[in-house]
Amino acid sequence: MSGKTATSSTRAPRPDRATSTREAILTAAEQLFAEQGVFAISNRQVSEAAGQGNNAAVGYHFGTKADLVRAIVRKHNAFVEADRERLLTEYAGSTAIRDWVTCLIRPTTDHLATLGNPSYYARFCAQVMTDPTLRPILYTEALTSPALQRTLESWDACFPTLPPEIRSQRRDFGRLLLVHGCAEYERTLAEGSPTPHPTWQAFGANLIDATVAIYQAPLTPESR
Amino acid sequence: MSGKTATSSTRAPRPDRATSTREAILTAAEQLFAEQGVFAISNRQVSEAAGQGNNAAVGYHFGTKADLVRAIVRKHNAFVEADRERLLTEYAGSTAIRDWVTCLIRPTTDHLATLGNPSYYARFCAQVMTDPTLRPILYTEALTSPALQRTLESWDACFPTLPPEIRSQRRDFGRLLLVHGCAEYERTLAEGSPTPHPTWQAFGANLIDATVAIYQAPLTPESR
Repeated sequence: MSGKTATSSTRAPRPDRATSTREAILTAAEQLFAEQGVFAISNRQVSEAAGQGNNAAVGYHFGTKADLVRAIVRKHNAFVEADRERLLTEYAGSTAIRDWVTCLIRPTTDHLATLGNPSYYARFCAQVMTDPTLRPILYTEALTSPALQRTLESWDACFPTLPPEIRSQRRDFGRLLLVHGCAEYERTLAEGSPTPHPTWQAFGANLIDATVAIYQAPLTPESR
Repeated sequence: MSGKTATSSTRAPRPDRATSTREAILTAAEQLFAEQGVFAISNRQVSEAAGQGNNAAVGYHFGTKADLVRAIVRKHNAFVEADRERLLTEYAGSTAIRDWVTCLIRPTTDHLATLGNPSYYARFCAQVMTDPTLRPILYTEALTSPALQRTLESWDACFPTLPPEIRSQRRDFGRLLLVHGCAEYERTLAEGSPTPHPTWQAFGANLIDATVAIYQAPLTPESR
């Protein structure tokens, strides 16, 4: 608000200032998208909510709506991936399906726990995965990440006799439960609705139970 | 395009004509929403795709975007509900969880099968359930329907010793798999991508296997 700030705003932003502006935009966008819908919110609204006098700040710092969505996914996925790498090392050589399902689910639920309540990222991700135009972003940035791929290969190895197409289908079911289950749990916490699970840790354990069960389900004749 | 049509368009539509216009709008909207996103598409675009010279046709026949979404859900849910009522009668008195999971899943997958390929309704529903503002519509119209409630009560009765909060959580997981699993399978069919399941019938059997397994999963100490 000082004269100095007003003057400097006409120059190229300093690196640290640009970083904090980008961070403010990412935070504002994630919340608005989660609560009101990715497509209901304009880049102008995000810029305003991020406290940017310049309504074109999103465009300047990120580009399009899709670029902004990609930046939000990347920001969080860096933490999730690092934790998954750690678990992959811990479980190396295991043939217990529960270990690999844990390796899929825990890095995500633990990361969401660190965000505090309310968090927004899980609801944001569910929208991105469901929207026909944004969906490829989540796939490219998170669902084909190296650590996730190694996790899925390890659990495939736990079921050598299951037909590959059934394994693939059950992997997909597991991914759907992870993305949409976390979004619903996050919503429950944010709204202060009753939940049987007091923590992300407990919710994650329930999700692991369900996902392990899907993998171990007997095949019926109709489903082959 | 004739003079007669141009003249009659200024009068109140005849009932049969209004019905076919409404039907054309519902069909166009469902496809556009599924392929391009519920929020990316304007009511004007829907009116145009439905072949309506009047760009305000959606507003005239339905009202808001939310009203249009509700009408699409109601149109399909009438078929799903009728089929679920039939199955409820068939399975009355059963204590086999597979019967009640079938009662949840089959009416939906069978209805989607009748729509032919490409269908759009499953992808549309997944978006509606994920969007924070549209979500209540799907809940009110479909997910609290009487036949569905009776189905869920019947399967609760199959697990008298499972803590109610765990039953509730697993019901939610089943619902997520149904809505989002069908959406992904519909997309696979529509895109002509490889799938292990040649028919909705086979896909539904796989979904039933997975959902039964979730219900029967052993409880681990961490998830209580």
